[in-house]
Amino acid sequence: MSQISGKVVVAQSGGPTAVINQSMVGAVLESRKFSQISKVYGALNGVEGIVNEKFLDLTQATTHNLEMVANTPSSALLSSRKKPDTKYCQEIFKVLKAHDVRYFFYIGGNDSAETARIVNEEAFKASYELRVIHIPKTIDNDLKVTDHCPGYGSAAKFVSQAFSGVNLDNRSLPGVYIGVVMGRHAGFLTASSVIGKKYNDDGPHLIYLPETDFNIDTFVKDVVATYDKYGRCIVAVAEGVTDKEGTPIMVKLTNSKERDAHGNVQLSGSGALGDELANLIKNKVSKIKRVRADTFGYLQRSFLGVVSEVDQQEAREVGEKAAQFAVWDNRSGSVTIERTGDYSVDYKLTELKNVARDATCMPPEFIKGKNNVTEEFKNYVRPLIGDSASYARIYAPSVDKLL
Amino acid sequence: MSQISGKVVVAQSGGPTAVINQSMVGAVLESRKFSQISKVYGALNGVEGIVNEKFLDLTQATTHNLEMVANTPSSALLSSRKKPDTKYCQEIFKVLKAHDVRYFFYIGGNDSAETARIVNEEAFKASYELRVIHIPKTIDNDLKVTDHCPGYGSAAKFVSQAFSGVNLDNRSLPGVYIGVVMGRHAGFLTASSVIGKKYNDDGPHLIYLPETDFNIDTFVKDVVATYDKYGRCIVAVAEGVTDKEGTPIMVKLTNSKERDAHGNVQLSGSGALGDELANLIKNKVSKIKRVRADTFGYLQRSFLGVVSEVDQQEAREVGEKAAQFAVWDNRSGSVTIERTGDYSVDYKLTELKNVARDATCMPPEFIKGKNNVTEEFKNYVRPLIGDSASYARIYAPSVDKLL
Repeated sequence: MSQISGKVVVAQSGGPTAVINQSMVGAVLESRKFSQISKVYGALNGVEGIVNEKFLDLTQATTHNLEMVANTPSSALLSSRKKPDTKYCQEIFKVLKAHDVRYFFYIGGNDSAETARIVNEEAFKASYELRVIHIPKTIDNDLKVTDHCPGYGSAAKFVSQAFSGVNLDNRSLPGVYIGVVMGRHAGFLTASSVIGKKYNDDGPHLIYLPETDFNIDTFVKDVVATYDKYGRCIVAVAEGVTDKEGTPIMVKLTNSKERDAHGNVQLSGSGALGDELANLIKNKVSKIKRVRADTFGYLQRSFLGVVSEVDQQEAREVGEKAAQFAVWDNRSGSVTIERTGDYSVDYKLTELKNVARDATCMPPEFIKGKNNVTEEFKNYVRPLIGDSASYARIYAPSVDKLL
Repeated sequence: MSQISGKVVVAQSGGPTAVINQSMVGAVLESRKFSQISKVYGALNGVEGIVNEKFLDLTQATTHNLEMVANTPSSALLSSRKKPDTKYCQEIFKVLKAHDVRYFFYIGGNDSAETARIVNEEAFKASYELRVIHIPKTIDNDLKVTDHCPGYGSAAKFVSQAFSGVNLDNRSLPGVYIGVVMGRHAGFLTASSVIGKKYNDDGPHLIYLPETDFNIDTFVKDVVATYDKYGRCIVAVAEGVTDKEGTPIMVKLTNSKERDAHGNVQLSGSGALGDELANLIKNKVSKIKRVRADTFGYLQRSFLGVVSEVDQQEAREVGEKAAQFAVWDNRSGSVTIERTGDYSVDYKLTELKNVARDATCMPPEFIKGKNNVTEEFKNYVRPLIGDSASYARIYAPSVDKLL
């Protein structure tokens, strides 16, 4: 066992998920078991809380409170969109050192992994014994190495159930329905809409992913063809779809220029993409009278009460494993989930640099043409969503006409 | 007991709800118990299915199938936006008579009650023994006489849980968040967002209802005041908010002119109102950097798997009572829910004309000022939503700074 004694700091970063607190609580409760860990601190607002020394002493939180928090969506330690550079990471390291922190667990996506990597490097350069573990989290499911990311399963469950519902709604009052789904440059979340289908003619009938190029004319043609076949059409479209040149369709149709803190085009928080796609159909296809668009927005990552059980458990486990890898194995790294069966997983630790900085997206074998997903993807995502509510149509014979 | 023997026709109308099939199945299964009822038909697509003689013989549906359907959101018999005039009602009556239908159960809102009323009148004029029962349904909760409407509780649960989630999300990444809620001219659904609050500083901090006039400058001031107080602001706004003159804010800000089949301004199916309200804040208040808007859209009335248990049970009961009132009591009318305790209800039958045509909205005692609801409203809505998922904050002491 590692002989490094000192404190633990846990922090959360980026967009929240339904299960991010499971990971935090997993890391906290597991850390509290080790005698060489003197205190477990939670930094408020991610790395900003570290630099500003805003810590809560989670050693003094009750287990019941932590268990309640674990079941609460969104980052209980609050979050941050900060993408620290080397200088900022040096600040982080300075504070961690001052507090005799020997274990730093950072829950987040690829940017957080990059922060963890630099902080780890700073500690190494200073010959300060620090173990830094990145705990994966993102509804976009776009981290490298790991089979999937905690947070994704629950968001995917929300998206698939949302599409089940709007499919039933649209069946009773037919027309074209467009649902815009989060995920930035990865289509995993949009693709999960396919799990909402039960009967062969159920929607979503068209699924547009950021991994394939989106052509406006083809989109209109696809919708018309589906409408002609089923008398209605349900579309799942990723907020991050781009044209052949890589220009976001959001920018193309809306001239939106809003950028986030990282200089990326603001894709979420507005209904513009859905509305413009709906307008395209309204303006170009006169025979289709009813066109509706919803942008699922923040509901899909923070809705209270819709959570995948598997996702919840795995989020808890990656948090626990972070503490175990750091203390028992004396290692730094990023916790990954390896799929070992259908369905079983194992947790591994990979080097921080393998997950840091660059994100990934849907592999080609999950994508079918330009508007659908493969059976392979369905088998990939189903266990991550787990059991969902089902639905049924009436089975009864038609009555002969009398008039 | 009534001596009228013949068939039953059940139909569903208007926007679907999460529990509309409970009412349908309640009416069907209860009707199947009576020996004087020879067949139970379901008309497809509301009154259009009657006029076109599109019936399913639900006497031949299995109980298991019907129970599965009862738990399925959205109208399993499909729906219609048709608002029949007297001539159309005569067509309906003609078909009902031809099929020896003696009981017509119509599940819908005030327009459906009006249809039921006219059909009932036609039968009376023709001295044809027909019992017509309107079964209440609407997420807007805007029907007269009844204490509340089946469908509302489940939609209110969705809305309150959505706000619980976005409140947590917004707490971790602060800014202004605007959630646009359905309900047309009634604020009940928007008001239910208040049930999502747990801690005193939780959102929604501002609730704008269609029952009070919405002033754009006051809105901006309210948001700034809240932001100054909490460092963030969550707004619940009804899609149907209007200015002092009664002009929908949707029309005022977006110049939208789309009208539905009934000539009403199209309020749902676009994110425009939320986006324009967000733009107002962005453009007028430079100190607020992060402004996001979501329009909950169709998810709130058809999301699979979020349902109020009380709502589910009551929806079932109003369907059963429809059959009982018609067959045992030999009456036509609209089923109403009377609140007899905190919380208990009784089912009554009121004359169709009392519910037909005009809708109602939030009474003054539920409304607090121009941006909030009263304790009385909270006590009104809580039992209709029932148990919801809860959430918690961390309770742990702060750590002293060292640097």
